Amino acid sequence: MTASTDHAGLEVLTRAQCIDLMSTEPVGRIAFVDAGEPVVLPVNFAIGDGQIVFRSTYGSKVSAALRAATVAFEVDSYDPGVRAGWSVIATGVAEVVESEDEIAELEELGLQPWADAVEKPIWVRITPDQISGRKT
Amino acid sequence: MTASTDHAGLEVLTRAQCIDLMSTEPVGRIAFVDAGEPVVLPVNFAIGDGQIVFRSTYGSKVSAALRAATVAFEVDSYDPGVRAGWSVIATGVAEVVESEDEIAELEELGLQPWADAVEKPIWVRITPDQISGRKT
Repeated sequence: MTASTDHAGLEVLTRAQCIDLMSTEPVGRIAFVDAGEPVVLPVNFAIGDGQIVFRSTYGSKVSAALRAATVAFEVDSYDPGVRAGWSVIATGVAEVVESEDEIAELEELGLQPWADAVEKPIWVRITPDQISGRKT
Repeated sequence: MTASTDHAGLEVLTRAQCIDLMSTEPVGRIAFVDAGEPVVLPVNFAIGDGQIVFRSTYGSKVSAALRAATVAFEVDSYDPGVRAGWSVIATGVAEVVESEDEIAELEELGLQPWADAVEKPIWVRITPDQISGRKT
């Protein structure tokens, strides 16, 4: 397969490449609109079954993402020494994982929230309906 | 000065600490609302005179940030080995730097855009009216 490039000369990644690269980084950033304002927050995340999952807590800033129609999720890696990097951006809906079976599976991931002291922990899942990525 | 902590037990950073830490990272993420949807994009940035500056190009996705009333800008660093990290979030207005003197100064920074092939380059400046940061 020949890699395609965008107008800026960056290599366009396939969905599978995007998912693979995202899996290599521990931190991503969730962005959403809250009361008309842009919000962006870092989360420790994992990829499971093509979904983005992370721990949060009710009442946190992140939990406002659950009220948003759509969220954007960004992961990147950049090496300034060689000026090489990649970035992936996914968009989708964020929702709380309710199924106890799924929660049990997610607990196995050993994923830690960005903050240690988490009361009323919840698992949040983003099912990406769009994923795009670029690589230098 | 005694460091304060937030409800999650994270150390709350002062504005000066936020600016210092941001300066240590080459990549930040700009988030804004475009046509009602959240957008988040990585940029190679620098801090000059307490302002966030980066190169972009007219017609790019990033340039839509110039139409946004407010943008949010996120920088973080996380070491999964020791589960320690920090994050800083700034909000403000993004605008094109028009002054030729300022542009000449910015060119001295040696800052490269995320993408190499940049036509009609512009310098974008975010003057933060709010900065907050947390450290584990």
